[in-house]
Amino acid sequence: MSYKILEGKKGIIFGALDENSIAWKTAESITEAGGSYVLTNAPVALRMGNINILAEKTGSKLIAADATNTEDLEKLIIQSQEILGSKLDFVLHSIGMSLNVRKGRHYTNLDYGWMTKGWDISALSFHKLMQCLYQKDAMNKWGSIVALTYVAAQRTFPNYNDMADNKAYLESIARSFGYFFGKDKKVRVNTISQSPTLTTAGKGVAGLDGFLKYAEKMSPLGNATAKECADYTVTLFSDLTRKVTLQNLYHDGGFSSVGVSQEIIDSINPSD
Amino acid sequence: MSYKILEGKKGIIFGALDENSIAWKTAESITEAGGSYVLTNAPVALRMGNINILAEKTGSKLIAADATNTEDLEKLIIQSQEILGSKLDFVLHSIGMSLNVRKGRHYTNLDYGWMTKGWDISALSFHKLMQCLYQKDAMNKWGSIVALTYVAAQRTFPNYNDMADNKAYLESIARSFGYFFGKDKKVRVNTISQSPTLTTAGKGVAGLDGFLKYAEKMSPLGNATAKECADYTVTLFSDLTRKVTLQNLYHDGGFSSVGVSQEIIDSINPSD
Amino acid sequence: MSYKILEGKKGIIFGALDENSIAWKTAESITEAGGSYVLTNAPVALRMGNINILAEKTGSKLIAADATNTEDLEKLIIQSQEILGSKLDFVLHSIGMSLNVRKGRHYTNLDYGWMTKGWDISALSFHKLMQCLYQKDAMNKWGSIVALTYVAAQRTFPNYNDMADNKAYLESIARSFGYFFGKDKKVRVNTISQSPTLTTAGKGVAGLDGFLKYAEKMSPLGNATAKECADYTVTLFSDLTRKVTLQNLYHDGGFSSVGVSQEIIDSINPSD
Amino acid sequence: MSYKILEGKKGIIFGALDENSIAWKTAESITEAGGSYVLTNAPVALRMGNINILAEKTGSKLIAADATNTEDLEKLIIQSQEILGSKLDFVLHSIGMSLNVRKGRHYTNLDYGWMTKGWDISALSFHKLMQCLYQKDAMNKWGSIVALTYVAAQRTFPNYNDMADNKAYLESIARSFGYFFGKDKKVRVNTISQSPTLTTAGKGVAGLDGFLKYAEKMSPLGNATAKECADYTVTLFSDLTRKVTLQNLYHDGGFSSVGVSQEIIDSINPSD
Repeated sequence: MSYKILEGKKGIIFGALDENSIAWKTAESITEAGGSYVLTNAPVALRMGNINILAEKTGSKLIAADATNTEDLEKLIIQSQEILGSKLDFVLHSIGMSLNVRKGRHYTNLDYGWMTKGWDISALSFHKLMQCLYQKDAMNKWGSIVALTYVAAQRTFPNYNDMADNKAYLESIARSFGYFFGKDKKVRVNTISQSPTLTTAGKGVAGLDGFLKYAEKMSPLGNATAKECADYTVTLFSDLTRKVTLQNLYHDGGFSSVGVSQEIIDSINPSD
Repeated sequence: MSYKILEGKKGIIFGALDENSIAWKTAESITEAGGSYVLTNAPVALRMGNINILAEKTGSKLIAADATNTEDLEKLIIQSQEILGSKLDFVLHSIGMSLNVRKGRHYTNLDYGWMTKGWDISALSFHKLMQCLYQKDAMNKWGSIVALTYVAAQRTFPNYNDMADNKAYLESIARSFGYFFGKDKKVRVNTISQSPTLTTAGKGVAGLDGFLKYAEKMSPLGNATAKECADYTVTLFSDLTRKVTLQNLYHDGGFSSVGVSQEIIDSINPSD
Repeated sequence: MSYKILEGKKGIIFGALDENSIAWKTAESITEAGGSYVLTNAPVALRMGNINILAEKTGSKLIAADATNTEDLEKLIIQSQEILGSKLDFVLHSIGMSLNVRKGRHYTNLDYGWMTKGWDISALSFHKLMQCLYQKDAMNKWGSIVALTYVAAQRTFPNYNDMADNKAYLESIARSFGYFFGKDKKVRVNTISQSPTLTTAGKGVAGLDGFLKYAEKMSPLGNATAKECADYTVTLFSDLTRKVTLQNLYHDGGFSSVGVSQEIIDSINPSD
Repeated sequence: MSYKILEGKKGIIFGALDENSIAWKTAESITEAGGSYVLTNAPVALRMGNINILAEKTGSKLIAADATNTEDLEKLIIQSQEILGSKLDFVLHSIGMSLNVRKGRHYTNLDYGWMTKGWDISALSFHKLMQCLYQKDAMNKWGSIVALTYVAAQRTFPNYNDMADNKAYLESIARSFGYFFGKDKKVRVNTISQSPTLTTAGKGVAGLDGFLKYAEKMSPLGNATAKECADYTVTLFSDLTRKVTLQNLYHDGGFSSVGVSQEIIDSINPSD
């Protein structure tokens, strides 16, 4: 990509863990497109991943912040503006975790302490982030906020568990807060509903391999990769999409609009 | 069913062909629920099917009418009110046919004459019917109009062909005309998006068997039968649903809200 | 209503407070339709309302239960089956409360403790309820579970505040749990998205009067009343709707499918 | 815009009439972004508008073609490839006309000859166009096809008349054909659902002024302009959006996700 459609744009990227992360790929694509940013993740994620490699490579600062902690978010937002020398043009929320999924609890047998924790991390954090950005008036006019989500918010995928409910809540926050961010600050808020992606986090989901194969066969253009998602996010951070807001945007090779594909019918017929 | 939730209700039923027809089952359910009606179908369908058996059995009159012909519709609506002795409380539109499907034309190689004919029969006929009912003021206040449709109007099913586009148009007519029928006449208009059903008409769709199996495995409660659809339609014709209008109502065992079922994932894994 | 479409059906009704409650009206409609039930609400609500009048009038038992407390739910479900003498055929979840709304916090300035509490009461309680019903195998085959929701889960209504996000989460739970309840128990789970309704609880929402007027003008059939919602719920508890599941069903006089009405355009033109 | 995200991309643009046209603005934006194209419109439109000015200014060829005529489309597609020296990377379908709207027929009193003509021009033409592109193998791999549509396909706007049904059909064609174009040719097909826009064509719609005001008040970011739509279309033609397909993408300042805005409630209260 030699074109610089994010020239001069500045922002914050949440959720890069390692080179499989969508947020990692997005950081790389933003750099290519001329943008700059502060990277952030939870302290524990910083220890587990190798995000410092990304920071060095892209000349970015790295700030640890727990996205469920409003004080951490405040500090992050203040420091990021100092580092970048201006208000923010874009923010990426790529955060999600379900303890019930990790610990193998079935959806009909959930632990409510874990459910609350997962909701706080995966969904409520998006409100906390935006409330802090809004109250600190940290976004430039015509700025763009994006969170990553999944079609399980609309339709049931049996193994996606309580993450489905978290994503539905997250998408609702995007609409609810997007209304006020639009009216009051001319900032747009959208979610990208991405194909299932084999990130390090995603590897924890039971049966993901079989499901990736299914999604690939269902999608006319095949599953979208993390890199493709990164490129798509770049368009949403650019000035070319200023009037797109309060939307949930499927980036999935067509999966969401397919009822069934011929390949799926064919693979079922013989086995029964 | 011993309860008479349609006691005294009168209407017209389009599209009964033989005992596999959803419209046939609906007629039977309406009779059980205490309603009465005029049966109608195209002249050619009357010759092919055995709808006269249904008419005798339920004590109903049978009037031939081509639903694409506004003069036929006018006569039908006038005569039906004479026969039934009152304005109408309910109308069922269960009409659909694609010449491209019948003749095996692929969606990327359609005949536009056939496409226009199929659109006229399957979709435009619903407007013609409602325009005639509206202009003749033939519906009682709080009457109910229902058309049958399919989820292919929202998502692609490769073999459903141009019927998908026809159903999308039909559903749009339901909303567009339902607005005016509601405001001006207090009549509601809805579509029921029914599970794939092995009617005599449906038998023409390529690969329907494999698809029925797929839908059965995807639907938490299994595919909905024609009889179950009939019962559901009865609720929409009753006074218990007076404020439901401009809706597309899925009657499909849950299919439309499932992204994938465990059975489908399981049946794919081994084959690849 | 002289027809008994719920003859012999037994269930639990959550959320009746006083005669303005949708749950109250639903209880009355169920009684008319031949069903019987246990009434329940939170201890504090029992003190505030007059639900004992409803219990006496309909010959129903009343059990206090905090729907966020899994022990309370367990006891309620066990006792209800003892009282009713069988498993359950239907359950109504009509529960919702936002502390942020009550205390007048703007959506851009929410209290996260209150947000968590409101989410627990309004949304998570539905999972807790169903998990308990499921694990105790308390539902009869072909039973029906309904929760009440609002279109703010899909589109932003500025004063609906964090209840929008709660309802989005609630609707997601309906799909997620409905999948397993359908597959494993043949029980259906749906939400009814009801017109704005002037219940005692609803009176707390800022600007509700103006909004009710708006919704009335937008809806081709006008706003749906609590009594009409009750009747609609009766159809969903009856055997006539067995294959409807995982759906969010709009009962709103058509509001949800209208982009704008002529009356709204007319009322805007002169004022500007 | 100094970035050339469409460098080397070639295509066909349907529907530029005069400088108010979305297609005109899109042509200009594509030129700025480095793309080149053939312009086309119906012979009568070429006489009425001043598209030759656009052709000269952008160094583009202009070919007259009736989009309802498959022979015209064939010639256009063959000649365009000759002129551009390669297969096509993008195609814009910005075509719509309702004779019923133009002649002031109410939706409850439509002329079916006009309805058929409007459907052919506004909706079926999109299938004819894609069938020709597909059969002639005229699209490059990873090419992008976009048609313009309007939210009236999902919700009723009383004055939008039969164009609502046409747009619903158009959007269905996008999904249906997009499936095969994706699977077989790696080409994506999407629709952009644009804010109401005061084009020369749009001026014919009754009450458009009042409606534009309404939409402006409902949209958190205000109505999207033709120029903004052009820029958004550029992103969909670029390589940054390769896995977005079969989607209906709202470009409307948030209108589609807003239930009501405070300004609308405020403007209603006093008047009643």
